[in-house]
Formats: sequence, structure tokens, C-alpha cells
Amino acid sequence: MNILVIGAGGMVGRKLTASLLENCVLAGREIGRITLVDVAAPDAPDGKGIVIDTRAADIADASVAPRLIETRPDVIFHLAAIVSGEAELDFDKGYAINLDGTRHLFEAIRQAGKAERYCPRVVFTSSIAVFGAPFPEKIGDEFFSTPRTSYGTQKAIGELLLSDYSRCGFFDGVGIRLPTICIRPGAPNKAASGFFSSILREPLSGREAVLPVDDSVRHWHASPRAAVRFLRQAAEIDTASLGARRNLNMPGLSATVGEQIEALRRIASNKAVSLIRREPDPMIIEMVDGWAKDFDAARAISLGFEAETSFDDIIRIHIEDELGGALPK
Amino acid sequence: MNILVIGAGGMVGRKLTASLLENCVLAGREIGRITLVDVAAPDAPDGKGIVIDTRAADIADASVAPRLIETRPDVIFHLAAIVSGEAELDFDKGYAINLDGTRHLFEAIRQAGKAERYCPRVVFTSSIAVFGAPFPEKIGDEFFSTPRTSYGTQKAIGELLLSDYSRCGFFDGVGIRLPTICIRPGAPNKAASGFFSSILREPLSGREAVLPVDDSVRHWHASPRAAVRFLRQAAEIDTASLGARRNLNMPGLSATVGEQIEALRRIASNKAVSLIRREPDPMIIEMVDGWAKDFDAARAISLGFEAETSFDDIIRIHIEDELGGALPK
Repeated sequence: MNILVIGAGGMVGRKLTASLLENCVLAGREIGRITLVDVAAPDAPDGKGIVIDTRAADIADASVAPRLIETRPDVIFHLAAIVSGEAELDFDKGYAINLDGTRHLFEAIRQAGKAERYCPRVVFTSSIAVFGAPFPEKIGDEFFSTPRTSYGTQKAIGELLLSDYSRCGFFDGVGIRLPTICIRPGAPNKAASGFFSSILREPLSGREAVLPVDDSVRHWHASPRAAVRFLRQAAEIDTASLGARRNLNMPGLSATVGEQIEALRRIASNKAVSLIRREPDPMIIEMVDGWAKDFDAARAISLGFEAETSFDDIIRIHIEDELGGALPK
Repeated sequence: MNILVIGAGGMVGRKLTASLLENCVLAGREIGRITLVDVAAPDAPDGKGIVIDTRAADIADASVAPRLIETRPDVIFHLAAIVSGEAELDFDKGYAINLDGTRHLFEAIRQAGKAERYCPRVVFTSSIAVFGAPFPEKIGDEFFSTPRTSYGTQKAIGELLLSDYSRCGFFDGVGIRLPTICIRPGAPNKAASGFFSSILREPLSGREAVLPVDDSVRHWHASPRAAVRFLRQAAEIDTASLGARRNLNMPGLSATVGEQIEALRRIASNKAVSLIRREPDPMIIEMVDGWAKDFDAARAISLGFEAETSFDDIIRIHIEDELGGALPK
């Protein structure tokens, strides 16, 4: 099993890589090679017998994708993207990476398949940002994509291309619309959704955090652990069960910022909660107002995908995976 | 009022041009100039005082769009497309014209708006091919786009781009999902939907026609007259009423092939009906099976869009507009 991870340097990419190296098997086949790609070369982990190839590459450059698939990976995880906040501020860059980069990859696979039999599984991380308000109370599996950000537009276009290339037999694609990943570890990135994590992560480590929206804001979450599980399942699922509709809303947990804060109070302390500083940001308030709040992810659940059911669990996962199992004294 | 029609050589483009020249006003403003563009230069009609500029141009070429908008048209009708059957047979050509061509146009407008105030109305003809089976009994305004053809994929992507460029204020776009246009006059084109017209048009003129699908096939239709009316209304509508959702299902008439044939029998004769030869075509049967059958186009209807309500009317419109008002003796 030869695996390519594009966007391997990001948080989800690193956790996916760690998971692949931990059990060395995907879709019932032993992993022999993993190529890790990002705009800056990812750190090479200890491969424990698995060949690890790390590369710096910009997928917006059309000449890159054909080289990335030279070893004909069996599974390609395409996680690379300019995040929502940055794609909104830099229109050209967002389209260059999120749309053109995705299209270059898909097209390279199609061209490779002309000369030889080649039809890899492609797992594409889409986003709930493909949906735009106004919403029904719960977004169902057949709700339309009317994104209200350029990022959401680019992801929705990636989904359409994924479906068409899969329908034509150029590859075997699965798109997964990840909930907002919470608690995102490490330093904040430019995603406008970053505060959903930082209001928990920073206080859990004794640091201040800024909350730019109201406590009543409801949103859709899943842990980094769930995200990695979704990616692995998307690589392993029998796509015959998907038919022509290859993009799936992943399950998640719908919660308000207030509910997040109450979970923080239960798992940590009032003192942790007091580290959250309210500082409304009109640009973020407006963006978040157009985001999805709750889903009925019946289709993915029937296919075996599962997320957390309480924010207490989401916080506990962060403490186990990022803080060594206990809150700092 | 300066108008650009891209795809002006096609059937809808020619009828739209005739309509614009007939009353010389659009959106309450007198028309001063019309530029007609297609891959082969359209015939220049008598402008009756309106400046008519006809050009041959291939919108797949990125250098073309900036030149097409040099006179800064106030309204741009973007009708140019490779039709469904051809886009399915020639993957590269379909994407080059239907996706890249559309993107080049949108991008040229955005670039023009950097140097000066420029925000034209863009009317984009999308298609019900953005929807793919399985469907609800009637497709509502919030049903998702899961096209089952490359053509439908390209149109769905055009819609997403139209919405994002409009949201960002680069232009003021309206996308209209036309029903299948029936009765399409003139020679058959490569659209897989062509038979819906030819089984009426050819017998009405005493010629044989081939029916490649079963009589029970249900589909969604509107006359060429209705299509032109939709385009004009899309150029005139107050887009504030659309909000962020700029792509609209147009109203139409849901009918089976059998119902079309019975209308032909009523308006023409049993002899006309006997000219329909049944010759099932597996490729067309499979494509048509994935197409929409009926809609609840509530949103467009509430905005004032209207289609025919019987196939008898659709046939009568063809007789009036194409056959000089009477069936050939």
C-alpha cells in the first residue's frame, strides 16, 4: 500500500500520518510507502520500516501534481488548502490553491490513467463551509451548497470535480465535509473558526483567549481524533455504497459557545473560564453567522462514521492527546 | 445601454437578439450597442440605429474575455456552452469552454473593476442538468446539485463562481437554470435532449423523427419564447431580492413523451404522430434517466417568471414563430 498525503504538514495531516504509522495497515493492506507533501517539507517521522518520502511542493503549480503521483499511490489524501479566513482576504491565492491545485491533482491522475491502468482512491477533505445561511434547523444530506465564502465555494467546486472524475472512472473519490475540528492543538492558524478551539485550548493551559462572537453562537464540531478516523474510513469504505453521490456530511456535535464554556467549567475550573476575554469582531461575527449550526448526518452515520456526543468528551480527548493526560498544575 | 451576448450564434442567442432589437429597451434603458459573439461570428442583423458589433471568439482562450468587455457592457448574457452530449464525449473540450471559458469571463470583469468602477449585470444560463437522480417527486428550490454529466458539473461550477464573484461585488450575477427548450427550431444539435424537440418539430413539417427513449419518460420543458423572456427578466430583476442565492430554477412544464405525442396528435394529426420512429438508444436512455423530471419552482414564480402550462401551447408557439402561423399543407 502506497499512500500520498498532500497537506501533510497541517494538524490533521500530522495526526493522520501518526495514525498510519501506528498500525501500518490501511484498507486491510500493509503500508509500504508514505509520501508526505506540503508547501514546506513536513518533518520526516520514524517510518519503522515504511519508506517515508517528504517533499515541499506548491500544488498551485500545474507541473507539481504529475510528479507527486509518479510512484502511483494507491490512496491519496488531499488535505491541502488555504483556510477560510485567508481565502477570504486573498481571493487569488484561495482560488490558486483550493481550486486550481485540486484540479491539477485530479487532472494529473486522469492523464496517468491514459497510459496505464491507474485508478487510486482519492480522499478529499471538504468542509461544512459549502453550506450558507439561511439553513433549516438541521442540515440534511440533500441540502444545497450555497457557500457564503470563497473558501466554501472552492470546496464545493472541488466536490463537484471529485464526483465527475469518479463518475468517469478516472479515480475512486470520496469527499468528506469535516465539522470544525475542535480542539485544534498548537498555534492558532488563520481560519476564522479558530476561536472555537482557542477558547478551550488556551484556558486549559492557563492562558488567555479571545472570544469574538456571542455565547449563543451554535456550531458543528468534531475532535481531531474523529477527523483522522473519518479520513481512514473514507479510504476504506466500499464506494459502491455511495453511488454517484460521493460527498458526505460527516457526523459531529452541535453545541453553542456557551455550552463549550460550561464543559470547560466542568472539566477544568471557573478560573479557566475567567481567562476567556470577550472582544466582538464584526468580520468574524458576519462570517460565522453564515455557517452551518447543526446537521442530520444520517447517510454518513449509516455508513459507520461516528463523532463525539458531548463537549466534555472533546475536551478530555484534548487532555489525553495533547496535554499528557492531565491539566497543567 | 451596452449589451454583450456571448453565445449569440445559438438558437437562444439569436432569439434573444431579435427580441432586444424588437423593442430596443432593456431594464428601462434604451439600447445603444449590442456585441454578438460566438465561436463563428454571428450574422449581423439590421440594428435599426443600434450599433451592432459581431465577433468570432473562442472563450476558452484566456486572452479573449478582456477584449470582449473592452466597451464595458452594462449587461452580459453568457449563453456560450458545449452542449451536454458533446461535453460527455469530449471531456477536455467541455471543461475548456464551459468551465474555463466562464471563469475567464468572470475574471476579466473582476480585473476590469480594479482600475475603474465596473460592475455589470451578468446573466448566466445554467441548466437543470446540475441535478442528478435520484430525485424527489418535485425538485424544490433547496435541492442539492449532484450532476451526473460533465456538462451538469461544469454548469454547477459556473453557478458557484457566479455567486462568489457576485458576493464579492465583482459583478451583479443571476444564474437561470433553463428547462429543456422545446420546440427547438432548426437542425438538431448534439444535445442529448434534442429528441424532445425533434419528435414534434420534424412531424409538424412532414418529416420522420427518431424517439430514442420510452413514452413514459417525464421531463421539464419551456418554449424558446419563455427562455428569451427569462433572460430579459434576469437582466432586469432587482438582485437585492435574491440575497446570496443567485441561481434560480426557472418555471416550466412537466410532461411525459407520451403527453407530448398526444398534444401533437391534437394540434396536428395521427399522420404526424405516425412519423415518430421508435429506436431506443442505450446511451441516451441512461443519460436521460439521470435528469430531472419535475420541479416546484416557487422562488422564480414568486419573482415573476412564468412558463407555459400545456404542451398544446408549446406546439402552437412553434407554429406561430417558426412555421408562419400554420402547418404546412
